[in-house]
Amino acid sequence: MFEIIRPTLIIDKEVVLRNIKRMAAKAQKHNVRFRPHFKTHQSAKIGEWFRDCGVEAITVSSVQMAEYFAANRWNDITIAFPLNVLELDNIQKLATKIKVNVLVENTDTARILADKSVQQLGVWMKIDTGYNRTGIEAGNTWESDKVIEYLAVNKNLEIKGFLTHTGQTYLSSSVDEIMRAHFDSLLKLKFFKNRYIDNYPNLQISMGDTPSASVCNNFVGVDELRPGNFVFYDLMQQSFGVCGFDDIAVRMVCPVVSKHISRNEVNIHGGAVHFSKDSIKNTDGKEMFGRVIVERNGDKLLLDTLNYLSKLSQEHGTIKVAHNQVNEFHVGQLVEIFPVHSCLTANLMGHYRTREGELIEMMPRF
Amino acid sequence: MFEIIRPTLIIDKEVVLRNIKRMAAKAQKHNVRFRPHFKTHQSAKIGEWFRDCGVEAITVSSVQMAEYFAANRWNDITIAFPLNVLELDNIQKLATKIKVNVLVENTDTARILADKSVQQLGVWMKIDTGYNRTGIEAGNTWESDKVIEYLAVNKNLEIKGFLTHTGQTYLSSSVDEIMRAHFDSLLKLKFFKNRYIDNYPNLQISMGDTPSASVCNNFVGVDELRPGNFVFYDLMQQSFGVCGFDDIAVRMVCPVVSKHISRNEVNIHGGAVHFSKDSIKNTDGKEMFGRVIVERNGDKLLLDTLNYLSKLSQEHGTIKVAHNQVNEFHVGQLVEIFPVHSCLTANLMGHYRTREGELIEMMPRF
Repeated sequence: MFEIIRPTLIIDKEVVLRNIKRMAAKAQKHNVRFRPHFKTHQSAKIGEWFRDCGVEAITVSSVQMAEYFAANRWNDITIAFPLNVLELDNIQKLATKIKVNVLVENTDTARILADKSVQQLGVWMKIDTGYNRTGIEAGNTWESDKVIEYLAVNKNLEIKGFLTHTGQTYLSSSVDEIMRAHFDSLLKLKFFKNRYIDNYPNLQISMGDTPSASVCNNFVGVDELRPGNFVFYDLMQQSFGVCGFDDIAVRMVCPVVSKHISRNEVNIHGGAVHFSKDSIKNTDGKEMFGRVIVERNGDKLLLDTLNYLSKLSQEHGTIKVAHNQVNEFHVGQLVEIFPVHSCLTANLMGHYRTREGELIEMMPRF
Repeated sequence: MFEIIRPTLIIDKEVVLRNIKRMAAKAQKHNVRFRPHFKTHQSAKIGEWFRDCGVEAITVSSVQMAEYFAANRWNDITIAFPLNVLELDNIQKLATKIKVNVLVENTDTARILADKSVQQLGVWMKIDTGYNRTGIEAGNTWESDKVIEYLAVNKNLEIKGFLTHTGQTYLSSSVDEIMRAHFDSLLKLKFFKNRYIDNYPNLQISMGDTPSASVCNNFVGVDELRPGNFVFYDLMQQSFGVCGFDDIAVRMVCPVVSKHISRNEVNIHGGAVHFSKDSIKNTDGKEMFGRVIVERNGDKLLLDTLNYLSKLSQEHGTIKVAHNQVNEFHVGQLVEIFPVHSCLTANLMGHYRTREGELIEMMPRF
């Protein structure tokens, strides 16, 4: 490995390619359009790895991200965030160059969009199937009728269908629960599709989350899949049973700066500005920010859950260490850490390095 | 205000200057060296505002931050992070150009530093006065004796004294508790100073945190103050009683993209990649990520704690709204939000805008 002296986000290209190919093959096998979400990696170069696997259409989470990927030769982009009417000019400008799809989830936005759109735009109706973050609530046909009524007035707007993010899979405690949430979501989307299919025969259904896209094997009725996190996976996904440790494609490498034997702790350079403050619950019931991999006799060894990243401040990280492991750590050592939430870690780090030291850039910050 | 269409971090220069001047005047009044921590703002331009208030020496949290500020004409910098021996070459290179102080908190690092230092470096011994993050534990004279023994061998190393970050003030529930933590820390630092003062007559005491620097009015025995967050303050500091709302110098401005009357929620563009996931507990016992300011009849109105930023995902923010306020929000509106932890919010946003739209840059990401 190249010389690392400070917190560094290492990417394993082979694992990334395997993750992409597996998901692309799954979508193809089930005859579902694969429109991966690029918010996890935010990188033109990693985008090319998707393109090499046959991907042509993508999902992003902001207008700026759409502009970045459009500038990198992506010409079919869904901005999977409730349309921000203040950005409509930028969206329309983008739509003069590439195919843009937006999300609408309320009548106010639909009305403004229909009033102002002078460019061709694809419009998905965002449905809330239980995550309760955004979207028209499942069954709220008053709102969906109204939204369609507004949109239908403007012929520049092509109503694509119904889209959801089944984020409740992130609260699942088993693969069965993920499946249940997925099929429940699908039913709710089909309800809307059936209501309008006579007038709009091309209506589609688009689903998204990495947990269900990873574990489900039945996508009958689904037209499009938009998972994002699967490109890297992370400890959160592993904790759901959605991926194995071998599927996690990114690791933070951090220098050990001190150890405190009296409380079985090791300090690293690597804090909230590197990992993010997202955590999962460790086996001891405490917050965990990462799991630790060390080198022993030339091999990489994942330590058990008695050894974990237990505290973060701005630049400091604290690893809680099992008492019989403390002496395996020393000042100046590099430890590798699986992040809890790879999307936020990558977003903070702003670039990747391969193990050979090759720089992989991401979109510039805002 | 200039046209804002997406999440934007707005800085109020007048409030920043008032915060800087107040703290600089306090340090001067108490005859304490003011060495503010620049990790909160990370901006060369804001650094100049400090310089205009007579500040000549600064604190940073990483070697890269030291390099950035050195390139911006700061020539006396303490890197307030336990020395990472892997970065010693970079630190020594920096020390050929400017005065650099480092922190040592264990014998291993002291030995390596003493072996390898060929440049003049100031060395502070980091003391753990109760925060239990890093530092030689108060009273552990075996470690401090040993560290001094190592350091003393290399005449390039000037032993400056004892330094702490009384981070336990961040767990205080009253101003009294902050005072108690501060004076307890000071006693522990004096214990070390007294032990070595005969051999090292110039030993100093350096203390740091914003809560105690803001509320204490007795600094007898303290030689240096290193607060950082006070430049902006934030909701966390306000919740400790350390500052008022009028002292908070940064606000996120975010567009409203939807509202959900059935659960009294409003969605904004503004998520974990803008605010960070740091939270405090709201009056309802739930996690709070920010408090909301709206415009009413031309005035800015801070809504009560029934209206707060209650959920964050990557780009989405959810504002929980009191039922009688829901109709005051509308799609396309801009809301202002006090962040919980201004250091992490600024770090994520990467730049500031004044209300007039002037760009204030920060150091580049890593």
